[in-house]
Amino acid sequence: MAAAEGGEPTRIMVAVNESTIKGYPHASISSRGAFEWTLKKIVRSNTSGFKLLFLHVQVPDEDGFDDMDSIFASPEDFRTMKHRDKIRGLHLLEYFVKHCHEIGVACEAWVKKGDPKEIICHEVKRIQPDFLVVGSRGLGPFQKVFVGTVSEFCVKHADCPVIAIKRNAAQTPQDPVDD
Amino acid sequence: MAAAEGGEPTRIMVAVNESTIKGYPHASISSRGAFEWTLKKIVRSNTSGFKLLFLHVQVPDEDGFDDMDSIFASPEDFRTMKHRDKIRGLHLLEYFVKHCHEIGVACEAWVKKGDPKEIICHEVKRIQPDFLVVGSRGLGPFQKVFVGTVSEFCVKHADCPVIAIKRNAAQTPQDPVDD
Repeated sequence: MAAAEGGEPTRIMVAVNESTIKGYPHASISSRGAFEWTLKKIVRSNTSGFKLLFLHVQVPDEDGFDDMDSIFASPEDFRTMKHRDKIRGLHLLEYFVKHCHEIGVACEAWVKKGDPKEIICHEVKRIQPDFLVVGSRGLGPFQKVFVGTVSEFCVKHADCPVIAIKRNAAQTPQDPVDD
Repeated sequence: MAAAEGGEPTRIMVAVNESTIKGYPHASISSRGAFEWTLKKIVRSNTSGFKLLFLHVQVPDEDGFDDMDSIFASPEDFRTMKHRDKIRGLHLLEYFVKHCHEIGVACEAWVKKGDPKEIICHEVKRIQPDFLVVGSRGLGPFQKVFVGTVSEFCVKHADCPVIAIKRNAAQTPQDPVDD
């Protein structure tokens, strides 16, 4: 047995999402934390040894809350809305891809729509990464009752090893359910 | 943000245990799997970027089953037994330390006695590794009712990120509770 020299890079899937705090499509605090942790603790200086696979799952706007003030007068308006969602998702992925590019780590990124926990596990089956990194808000049991946690579901159900990176306590927003 | 160049190595705690199958203190299938996975997928060729911390928790022989045929005639006999346990633990750690030494990865190893899940979480608090790797037998829900799983407990309770590496299906022994 020896440590791998060269060969195929280790493929790390990183599930990322948008911040719930700002209107602009910033990465969530826990997504950024998981990404930075992966670079600092796993990739380190071995930039050619890893490939990062960023998956962003957009949740369909079920209750239309985000579009409360929108007026839909034609089929075109719906297309505009869908187009805007797509742009937001791409902005988010751009953040991660840009940083990888700057430090010379290979990566791929894509957007899917649906229930994040289900889609992430489905994409793990399809892509077969070596492992999955997910950010976690590190909520207590009481808070979890109301929000459910994607990271816990993935740890239990994803078909690959999963490492959940808890958000730094110092970065927790006033409402810990925010991220 | 840039990938870390040099600096402190990433400290990975690896919880290891003895095989339940043979009398000789071989490493369990899942411990070896977790170790080999860590070298192949995380450490790779970056041998100076990581330090492995091997913790083996010996379970006190509560029902004395292993010593059924032993005769205890003097305090010395108990000391002999304890000495033998210690030797077994050291043999186990030697396996991992030897491999690390061969490929040039820094490591430390130590033995503790007690309930593995409690002791592992306690040692995580004390040592503060960057993350913990534990092997897992990958048992189904029915099997778990009877044996409990150290890896699940650590994923929930350890004070650092945890990655559980499931045993390769091809290496599962006839009785999946064995390891």
